[in-house]
Amino acid sequence: MERHFDGELKSLKEQLLTMGGLVEAMVRQAIEALVVRDATIIEEVIKNEEKVNRLHLEIDELCLQLIALRQPLAIDLRFILASSRISSDMERMGDLAINIAGNDLELLKVPPLKPLIDLPRMAEITQKMVKDSLDAFVRKDTDMAQAVIKRDDEVDALKDQIFRELLTYMMSDSGAIKRALELILISRHLERIADHATNVAEDVIFLVKGKDIRHPRVVH
Amino acid sequence: MERHFDGELKSLKEQLLTMGGLVEAMVRQAIEALVVRDATIIEEVIKNEEKVNRLHLEIDELCLQLIALRQPLAIDLRFILASSRISSDMERMGDLAINIAGNDLELLKVPPLKPLIDLPRMAEITQKMVKDSLDAFVRKDTDMAQAVIKRDDEVDALKDQIFRELLTYMMSDSGAIKRALELILISRHLERIADHATNVAEDVIFLVKGKDIRHPRVVH
Repeated sequence: MERHFDGELKSLKEQLLTMGGLVEAMVRQAIEALVVRDATIIEEVIKNEEKVNRLHLEIDELCLQLIALRQPLAIDLRFILASSRISSDMERMGDLAINIAGNDLELLKVPPLKPLIDLPRMAEITQKMVKDSLDAFVRKDTDMAQAVIKRDDEVDALKDQIFRELLTYMMSDSGAIKRALELILISRHLERIADHATNVAEDVIFLVKGKDIRHPRVVH
Repeated sequence: MERHFDGELKSLKEQLLTMGGLVEAMVRQAIEALVVRDATIIEEVIKNEEKVNRLHLEIDELCLQLIALRQPLAIDLRFILASSRISSDMERMGDLAINIAGNDLELLKVPPLKPLIDLPRMAEITQKMVKDSLDAFVRKDTDMAQAVIKRDDEVDALKDQIFRELLTYMMSDSGAIKRALELILISRHLERIADHATNVAEDVIFLVKGKDIRHPRVVH
């Protein structure tokens, strides 16, 4: 029974890593489709979302079964509950990548506004945060989790920079407004994906230290 | 023991309803601050968010304890897991109301762009969705939950309408761009709050029917 349970936990970890890999690919593809202006890449994003949604349901079901059948305690119970939360976070990251794909479709209808530099950079950091937060979780590595949380500031700074730059485009040319708006929305979606990766990283620290750092400003 | 457990479930429900009431108030206040142009109302939003964050932690802790100590099965376990998810959804709604308050602060620095009609209407529907989704959950009322899911379409339609209208303002007057952008972002935050209320409603159906309707397109 104990050995069986270990196998189930291992399979839960593998499913989470698979889901993380898919989400990472979706973020990369959603930005690549825009950079190389190729709508066929968007179809990949959509295919991957279906896989992500399927995994979300499977992981939730597995967590429910593990709790009901194995009645785990302490660290195992916290790990399973965190897995269920992380699966939800990843499913939402997938939704956000789909939102980016929607903005892409609008942007691919018209000529490019400007060469994209900050947005791919922002996407690259975000992807890395997704990957590292998941790795930190399965390894229970709090240092790695802390590094993810720190990188969120870089993403926020890039988001502000992108906003300011696109605002000047909009101000000087009304023909640029719609495209600039779509690019601003893409940067907001990336920001939210990075926020979800930060949630995952915070869950790692909660899991390992039993300390909830999600609302540091709350005084108990 | 059984009676004690019933009391604990009742207190879990009460905490969720309290949290829901606070989130509802935050949405109302965040839009009211903009309509009546009164920054002091924003302070109320911030105060309420602290309470929401505290409840988020307390509810999570209570769910963890209930699972570990009572080892609930079937419907009770599903109810507790759904409560934990719903608590996360509400915490995120609170974050989004805080985002709206941030947009308000920018908008209160400058004269109003136009009288607000669609945005307060959108906020009103969203608030009702938050309230009804929570009521549906504690009453395990799937009809009420279905009605919430249906109203999400109204919110999406209003969001599109607001976007199109503000785009025309931006196109015709570059002095309107920044304000129009903030209003567009507010409508996006409201849309996301409504999405979270929809998540809660979907959890109700999952809870009662044991059927996961969260990814209807996924074929098993």
